[in-house]
Amino acid sequence: MPSYTAPVKDMQFILHDVLKVTGQDVPGYSELEADFTSAILEEAGKLTSEVLAPLNAVGDTEGCILENGVVRTPTGFKAAFDQVREGGWPGLDMPEQYGGQGMPYVIGTAVGEFFSAANQAFTMYQGLTHGAASAILAHGSDQQKDTYLPKMVSCEWTGTMNLTEPHCGTDLGMMRTKAVPQEDGTYKISGQKIFISAGEHDMADNIIHLVLAKIPGGPEGIKGVSLFIVPKFIVNEDGSLGPRNGVSCGKIEEKMGIHGNSTCVMNYDEATGYLLGQEHKGMRAMFTMMNEARIGVGMQGLAQADVAYQNALDYAKDRLQGRDVTGVKNPDGPADPLIVHPDIRRSLMDQKSFAEGARAFMLWGASMIDRAHRNEDKDADGLISLLTPVIKGFLTDEGFDMTILAQQVYGGHGYIEEWGMSQFARDARIAMIYEGANGVQALDLVGRKLATDGGKHVMAFFDLVKNFIKENEGNEALKADFLDPLKAASKDLQAAGMFFMQNGMKNPNAALAGSYDFMHLFGHVCLGLMWAQMAKASHDALEAGAQDEEFYRTKLATGRYYMQRRLPATGLHLARINSGADTVMELEAANF
Amino acid sequence: MPSYTAPVKDMQFILHDVLKVTGQDVPGYSELEADFTSAILEEAGKLTSEVLAPLNAVGDTEGCILENGVVRTPTGFKAAFDQVREGGWPGLDMPEQYGGQGMPYVIGTAVGEFFSAANQAFTMYQGLTHGAASAILAHGSDQQKDTYLPKMVSCEWTGTMNLTEPHCGTDLGMMRTKAVPQEDGTYKISGQKIFISAGEHDMADNIIHLVLAKIPGGPEGIKGVSLFIVPKFIVNEDGSLGPRNGVSCGKIEEKMGIHGNSTCVMNYDEATGYLLGQEHKGMRAMFTMMNEARIGVGMQGLAQADVAYQNALDYAKDRLQGRDVTGVKNPDGPADPLIVHPDIRRSLMDQKSFAEGARAFMLWGASMIDRAHRNEDKDADGLISLLTPVIKGFLTDEGFDMTILAQQVYGGHGYIEEWGMSQFARDARIAMIYEGANGVQALDLVGRKLATDGGKHVMAFFDLVKNFIKENEGNEALKADFLDPLKAASKDLQAAGMFFMQNGMKNPNAALAGSYDFMHLFGHVCLGLMWAQMAKASHDALEAGAQDEEFYRTKLATGRYYMQRRLPATGLHLARINSGADTVMELEAANF
Repeated sequence: MPSYTAPVKDMQFILHDVLKVTGQDVPGYSELEADFTSAILEEAGKLTSEVLAPLNAVGDTEGCILENGVVRTPTGFKAAFDQVREGGWPGLDMPEQYGGQGMPYVIGTAVGEFFSAANQAFTMYQGLTHGAASAILAHGSDQQKDTYLPKMVSCEWTGTMNLTEPHCGTDLGMMRTKAVPQEDGTYKISGQKIFISAGEHDMADNIIHLVLAKIPGGPEGIKGVSLFIVPKFIVNEDGSLGPRNGVSCGKIEEKMGIHGNSTCVMNYDEATGYLLGQEHKGMRAMFTMMNEARIGVGMQGLAQADVAYQNALDYAKDRLQGRDVTGVKNPDGPADPLIVHPDIRRSLMDQKSFAEGARAFMLWGASMIDRAHRNEDKDADGLISLLTPVIKGFLTDEGFDMTILAQQVYGGHGYIEEWGMSQFARDARIAMIYEGANGVQALDLVGRKLATDGGKHVMAFFDLVKNFIKENEGNEALKADFLDPLKAASKDLQAAGMFFMQNGMKNPNAALAGSYDFMHLFGHVCLGLMWAQMAKASHDALEAGAQDEEFYRTKLATGRYYMQRRLPATGLHLARINSGADTVMELEAANF
Repeated sequence: MPSYTAPVKDMQFILHDVLKVTGQDVPGYSELEADFTSAILEEAGKLTSEVLAPLNAVGDTEGCILENGVVRTPTGFKAAFDQVREGGWPGLDMPEQYGGQGMPYVIGTAVGEFFSAANQAFTMYQGLTHGAASAILAHGSDQQKDTYLPKMVSCEWTGTMNLTEPHCGTDLGMMRTKAVPQEDGTYKISGQKIFISAGEHDMADNIIHLVLAKIPGGPEGIKGVSLFIVPKFIVNEDGSLGPRNGVSCGKIEEKMGIHGNSTCVMNYDEATGYLLGQEHKGMRAMFTMMNEARIGVGMQGLAQADVAYQNALDYAKDRLQGRDVTGVKNPDGPADPLIVHPDIRRSLMDQKSFAEGARAFMLWGASMIDRAHRNEDKDADGLISLLTPVIKGFLTDEGFDMTILAQQVYGGHGYIEEWGMSQFARDARIAMIYEGANGVQALDLVGRKLATDGGKHVMAFFDLVKNFIKENEGNEALKADFLDPLKAASKDLQAAGMFFMQNGMKNPNAALAGSYDFMHLFGHVCLGLMWAQMAKASHDALEAGAQDEEFYRTKLATGRYYMQRRLPATGLHLARINSGADTVMELEAANF
């Protein structure tokens, strides 16, 4: 059975050596002293390793079962959820006013990685609640906030997001779910929603569904969509639970993975709904949830990659098979451990350099969100909006690929469910799809985000890279190994942007045909930047005589691997982008 | 539910327009007239589409069940297997002497793709039988051949390959299964084998296990391994079935995919075994099966990619979502079909250009095997030996990636088992692992095959590419679109080979750290060569006034896509190879 150890030390390195959080002028950051964050991370690490990780395989094997309208979660989930609630983990970064701990998002993100890595299907119950609570926080009336938030922040009640219908996912303008206004100011919601994660289960007293629906007579298409709060049980004025609402789970889907989370078909039959935000402005309100959710999904890609890597590494050290070609390493054993073989190392280094780079990328992104929210910093907001599709699309694609590499280290055992490596791959697969399939992320990036505010944010990104290189150019320890490759990769990204500018106006397909490659190109440059920054931090620490030399030297070596072996992918993506749309668009549909 | 249509026309194109089989001086090829192969392929296409494909999901859902030592295969498998036997399909390319039809291997391969695409788990029962029969054909005594082959060629009896043990897969020298010689010339086989595909089932009267074991007192390690025939039921002298042998299935593994095939733990308890070939030469005999099996596994990668592509394409044409950015294409509908979107086309073209290129590669490889066997052509034998790890490793890695792309086209529906796309990915995943994990293929390629016969065969490959380019250089229709990119890719391959030569002698790790990339680089050059040859064939057909212009124009467009968008991957692989072993080998195992 696989195990999980939370990467506390690596997280501390990023928070303190790289991001230097306590030195940042973000409200709440000055309290994030190393001892304090260490205590939180250690505690979260213990819970996730000891309680959630052992339930991961249970969730996969048992799945969720629907019987007489009630969904039974896997053995042990309920008790574990109680432990999570008791620890106050769901409200870590939620306002104290509603019972949260008011910590910065960057800490919620750090802890969130541990949770997702240990048990993605389980963690989704609280993750969706967090997203729904964020939407109510941003768009709800005071009364709505007071009614729902305290219970949702504590996860006594959980939340869901209801967007997809059988005939429409990405294209929500075609939505059919109706919301008919009532005289008392409420709405009657009717329709069917599918793929609703945590839609029904037995771990909470109430479930607060956020539902997109159309008010009859409103604008056509996406502009006529509104967002509603539809609780499973109507909440009385005194806060007690009233009658059951007209919402029920019609079916649980059989999925490739995340079996421990109940993916429901939800039927709304004149259910009472309360408008959240303004009429016909549902998409805007929903996006509050979706941006946060997308970053959270990007993190799932990293998280599954990391836990899969940890287990592949253990196996590679334990499993004896073949001999080191340069000389026997384990003369007393019948063979050497797998890790002596160059190709096994190639695979492990791909995984390690991805996971650590992605972790830095995630936390940097989270710190931008804090800056955007807590400092009302519009530049930070613009940059993280630009990077959100990259975080979601690139980290989940790569994260999945890494679980496949990790599974491969096990040979035939990787294919046998008992060993648990298949589950990491199957669970990781969903992250490329939900919260906007990765192709849609690429479209969002190239079709919308690049040009936002006149391209200001992508220029800011380039400046950031340029300035980092300039500031450190005199540092010979960084130049050839880190700065030069970063410069080359960044040049590829700029060239791709230039290609879009020159060709996209007259032929939008020329840009869109390269959107997916652009997302990956951008992701690699981001990870290259992260590695350059981590190399600088490691170098500085060594110069300053840091105690744990080995840690920093390993960091530098891992970074060099990324720069040499992964970053050159930018050239391939650029070549694909530069080939334009001709060969992509040439065939008639009938000739495929 | 997904469907499958056998690509008969494409197969005919490769056989006749590209390989021009009837013009080749290989015994049996002159009979392969287009009408004849068309009849066979149509018939095979019908059987696979109508009988085997509908059972694919059944096999996945029901799996195989072990009860009281008996394995029950999924509903419908037995009846379908009878139909396959009645059609004589298992013996298509086996000798007439033993009841086969004596056709060339290239035809068996073409038909084999259809079978694998329609139902990989099902087809493995006959595939393994074919491999075991080939080993008996190559190494068995006349008596052994007469006893086993007629029943195996018809698949009345099936076969298995028993290599792996719990503690050793790749490193078979550590094997513990024992074969103790008896006075009557037989051996008593004792030990445990794992991951035995089709190890026990209810579809055949007898199962002929080929088992690797060590005769006590023989040489240490891999040199002391012998191969034995161990039938489930002892065969009496008159051919009737005698007593049950001491072999039983201890367990069926729960796997990620290919649930319809029973993957067994096989326990041998003083089972009677008959030496196949010579004592201590078991690996050589086993390799007869393994090379054929490896090519067959490469085909599985292509096959799953193709069936997944077919279904993704159907979905992309049917599913209405979003609008074409360049103008509405389906004004009467609520949205345009997915296939209007450039990024969906990018994905479909990746899949299509892979599947068609891989198909040509497979059939070219199969024709080399015919040449090697039927003409005793040592050069063909050397070249296909060199390319076997490329076919196995590259086609299964890429094939799996393509099933993931195909699954992605379905959005959320791709993750739901009901739609069948998950199964293609889960089934395709095994092909990267079994018959030698792909890392082992890369090791075989770089560590052994490259240098075989003084590097003669890789030089022959380069000559082949060079000559093709030279012969067609004057053809302006091919030059810029096909020959130039092929030349550039081939140069990358040569540069990689040069790097290994210069560095591999003093530091073997420098070559081995790049082995996986080399396998992929080589694969891309092979597919580039295939596309250049298919382009030439298409161009020639158009020049000659072929009727189906659309088919040939589509072929050219698909080829241009491959050359522009996929082939440039060679540059990235070369960069990774050229970075050498330093960053791969630097870390101590403890520092990972």
